[in-house]
Amino acid sequence: MNADHQPSAEWLAPSDSPRWVGLDIGGANLKIADGRGRAASAAFPLWREPRGLATAITSLLANFAAPREASIALTMTGELADCYATKADGVRAIIDATLDAAEGRAVRVAAVDDRWLTCADAKESPPLVAAANWRLGARLVAGQFPKDRGVWVDIGSTTTDVIPIEDGKVIAVGANDTARLLAGELVYTGVRRTPLCAVVDRLPYRGRECPVAAEWFATTADVWLLLGQLPENPSDSGTADGRPLVRQAAVERLARCLCADRDSFDVTDGLTVARHVAAIQTAKIVGALARHDAEWAVFTGEGEFLAPQVGNNATVAATSVASGHFGTAASRSFPAHAAAVLASHELGSNL
Amino acid sequence: MNADHQPSAEWLAPSDSPRWVGLDIGGANLKIADGRGRAASAAFPLWREPRGLATAITSLLANFAAPREASIALTMTGELADCYATKADGVRAIIDATLDAAEGRAVRVAAVDDRWLTCADAKESPPLVAAANWRLGARLVAGQFPKDRGVWVDIGSTTTDVIPIEDGKVIAVGANDTARLLAGELVYTGVRRTPLCAVVDRLPYRGRECPVAAEWFATTADVWLLLGQLPENPSDSGTADGRPLVRQAAVERLARCLCADRDSFDVTDGLTVARHVAAIQTAKIVGALARHDAEWAVFTGEGEFLAPQVGNNATVAATSVASGHFGTAASRSFPAHAAAVLASHELGSNL
Repeated sequence: MNADHQPSAEWLAPSDSPRWVGLDIGGANLKIADGRGRAASAAFPLWREPRGLATAITSLLANFAAPREASIALTMTGELADCYATKADGVRAIIDATLDAAEGRAVRVAAVDDRWLTCADAKESPPLVAAANWRLGARLVAGQFPKDRGVWVDIGSTTTDVIPIEDGKVIAVGANDTARLLAGELVYTGVRRTPLCAVVDRLPYRGRECPVAAEWFATTADVWLLLGQLPENPSDSGTADGRPLVRQAAVERLARCLCADRDSFDVTDGLTVARHVAAIQTAKIVGALARHDAEWAVFTGEGEFLAPQVGNNATVAATSVASGHFGTAASRSFPAHAAAVLASHELGSNL
Repeated sequence: MNADHQPSAEWLAPSDSPRWVGLDIGGANLKIADGRGRAASAAFPLWREPRGLATAITSLLANFAAPREASIALTMTGELADCYATKADGVRAIIDATLDAAEGRAVRVAAVDDRWLTCADAKESPPLVAAANWRLGARLVAGQFPKDRGVWVDIGSTTTDVIPIEDGKVIAVGANDTARLLAGELVYTGVRRTPLCAVVDRLPYRGRECPVAAEWFATTADVWLLLGQLPENPSDSGTADGRPLVRQAAVERLARCLCADRDSFDVTDGLTVARHVAAIQTAKIVGALARHDAEWAVFTGEGEFLAPQVGNNATVAATSVASGHFGTAASRSFPAHAAAVLASHELGSNL
């Protein structure tokens, strides 16, 4: 990034501030961060076991060794999970689970109007806090890049946020997820969980184009693993078939999308498919970004490896990869990180 | 259908023949039929509980009151389920589970080359019996409509077979599922299980087009239920979210595809979405059928209600709905029905 687009100040919470931990409760992952660069993520299929949420948050806080005196800056997207009849029900359930797990720690909830609500107030106004996590990341980036027009791009496991910023202000138009989809500010594509049948209708196979099986047979994690952008992880079973995230299993999952198996689909076939899906998925993010006439773009999230490709194709003058400023962990849990940083600046110890 | 395209003979097994039951083991449903018009289907998520298959088949045989002296004409598509490393593994596991459940009944397995194999021979040549079920339905239709060029269209819960027939002969070119996808003879779309994100990229919402969430939030069962083509069934939990197949829950599932909920998406919105998805899905089947220059088309399966729409749009002169010949149950389990009919004609008691 050139000198005009350097971050203006600190990305991190002040070290002498009261301690806040940011907590971001998604539908498939729980994320936690201390605002100083430390962060963690735990896979949790909320839609499958909503009653286990409080226990899962308790474990997350314990594994993260969150201090007893730390307060919790909460944000969420998990209220959309289909275990909840409405988003309002989901918001209330997520707040209650967090309070259960908080063990007396103070909890404040981020609202889309940039306030921090008490849990009681948040439960009274679910639309204000539903899917507000993007707003935190966008505000943190806006504070760091106060010049010109730019865009914050958070490429996650499931979705991608593409949020326009101008002269230090967030200028997104979508206030809820439906409006954000319509505005192209929420792009429902990610580098792990997106099923292939939602990305493409056809895939290349030995010189021909084959229609894709409309099943949850493989996801983009298989694609980016084969392309070397995600590491193998034998203990990761958050895959389409629950088998490990390793190359051989990934090839077999991709095979199944064409109703093939390892007897008729090899690693070369897998790489061909992976490159095709990667190109389509990248183009989708490029398209969303190109709507914004951005001079600069800041990339966060597990998919920040797409920054060079997306930035070039969207002809953005300056791109920045957030992990370069404060490390990979916080980049991957950026809204949780931003929650801790912003709460610490904005709330301090005034609770 | 005009007189030239009437069925030529009997669709049913002779009543004095040795008893055969046809068994069709799919990845999501198990089907059984007696070849005389009686048939049944049981939802069974094979990919989730492969070890329960023998027990599930035992229950199916018991609930169907299959006689102890009946032999079993077996066919399958479930070997593609992602619980099996390869289709060959799947074929062997399905045959073993069937033998377990058969309790001494003879079992013969349908092959794509129109032979009936012993279980031992079938386990030696898995590609011959993998996904051979379409061949049975096609042969039965070909025998009934021996004139001119036509097409058998079996619209199921998950997939649609579109099989060309000429002068009483099946002239399909695909021998395995990948080849069948490539040939347009297997269309991976169905009236229950197909996720919306695999059918459409965008959906109409209050005068705009909204991108679709790439999640398993709703399926085509919700669409056809709202359009009155599938009945409400409070005990059917084979839906995207496991909640009942009833109208209110279907509307809420469709809402979630746009990141909305019942507070922002009502029955009218649901009907608009349903009509759009129905049109796209119908057009996909029309496109596959139109490749074949068919003079007649015979429709079977749960989705045979699409016959008039598909037949008209593909400009087929004569269409026939199979349930009119032998009832709804057998039409919905047509390959199982065909297995029983053909085994009874071709094998009789010569085992």
